[in-house]
Amino acid sequence: MPDKELFKQHISQQFNSELEEIRTQLLEMGGLVEKQINDAIVALIEGDAKLAEQVREKDDAINQMELDIDQECMRILARRQPAASDLRLVISISKIIVDLERIGDEASKIARRAIDLVEAGQAPKGYVECRHIGHHVRRMVQEALDAFARMDTDQAFSVAREDKSVDQEYKSAMREMITFMMEDPRSISRVLNILWVLRSLERVGDHARNVAEHVIYLVKGIDVRHIGLKRMEAEVRREDNPE
Amino acid sequence: MPDKELFKQHISQQFNSELEEIRTQLLEMGGLVEKQINDAIVALIEGDAKLAEQVREKDDAINQMELDIDQECMRILARRQPAASDLRLVISISKIIVDLERIGDEASKIARRAIDLVEAGQAPKGYVECRHIGHHVRRMVQEALDAFARMDTDQAFSVAREDKSVDQEYKSAMREMITFMMEDPRSISRVLNILWVLRSLERVGDHARNVAEHVIYLVKGIDVRHIGLKRMEAEVRREDNPE
Repeated sequence: MPDKELFKQHISQQFNSELEEIRTQLLEMGGLVEKQINDAIVALIEGDAKLAEQVREKDDAINQMELDIDQECMRILARRQPAASDLRLVISISKIIVDLERIGDEASKIARRAIDLVEAGQAPKGYVECRHIGHHVRRMVQEALDAFARMDTDQAFSVAREDKSVDQEYKSAMREMITFMMEDPRSISRVLNILWVLRSLERVGDHARNVAEHVIYLVKGIDVRHIGLKRMEAEVRREDNPE
Repeated sequence: MPDKELFKQHISQQFNSELEEIRTQLLEMGGLVEKQINDAIVALIEGDAKLAEQVREKDDAINQMELDIDQECMRILARRQPAASDLRLVISISKIIVDLERIGDEASKIARRAIDLVEAGQAPKGYVECRHIGHHVRRMVQEALDAFARMDTDQAFSVAREDKSVDQEYKSAMREMITFMMEDPRSISRVLNILWVLRSLERVGDHARNVAEHVIYLVKGIDVRHIGLKRMEAEVRREDNPE
């Protein structure tokens, strides 16, 4: 093989390993974020202020991961000038980490509410709903990351579909909490903590859906944000792949 | 001038006009988003369900602007392979539009609450606070866009600083609303609408701050997300510019 070819191959191997590296870093960040959601819910349900504090402390590490991965994406864009699917990978990663960081923020907010509830005394209601919706959205985050790892648009689509049912669960839980506050006004400020937790969980579902949409973009090259599930499904099922 | 040079110059002029075009589109989108926030607040305060409906209808147009600008950014990345400050401009734009779209979402949510309040009857309290914080965050959005248009890091920093005082105004308004709900439990579900509006406005402030941080990155090449105001100010005041 001529020297020049060897050099090219070398560059391309280096480039591939750089892409592989940011992919791995994203999945690591995702794993940590998923754990944060889980820990925040456990802290809430079990009234574990210490665990809640730990969740809040770990948020900095997640923020830092976002900055590090984003910087690496920018470095790759500037130096490698990737095209086609490589470009889509870098751009998708730089977008997914924004959603992961926001999920981390929501975990941290839930942890703060958990601490408030330990101090103010448990709310009289709402824990079952938080646990249920909490597990649901945590699974969505996990599946969205899985879809990314396996470039699986079917799974990504199924995450987007799940978001609909989370929204319904959220609305029904909210109605119940509001009724409860009216019946027992002394519990208002404690039940409000539960309301904020529910709201955070619903946002986590939205972010998981965003991640899933970025995965579809990554694999199919089609931007499926802001379109309905039906049109999204049609796009996912289409056989033609951009490369 | 030799043909090749002429050709290069031509390409570079075309490239510049493409960059100018997405810059202009972003400012247009920003202007629309700012108007949405303003209209949503007016609809709330004046109990104008028709205006609120218009805000909700216009949200689609904003979503579409996000998709269009983002697609153009991707096209530029793929075909022009920009470097240095051009690359930062494209990346900053693709990030700022995400925040602008979310501000649009919040305007739409506020409009929905305005409609709910027209149907359920006005809440007994909270409109003064919504108007006050609403004007505050709308001005932040405007100033963040201005900072982008003029590449003005001082103004961007001042937007980030404003976010702190919005957070305080928000907390104090929330406390007041909660006290009020306890005093008058029959008003709970109407006052909750005000609570959600306040929450949305606080989020708008966060997004305006994000836009401001992207402007600092664009001009200075430094990522100031997730750092305190003091460190951010030190970075903004630094004379050395990356190019």
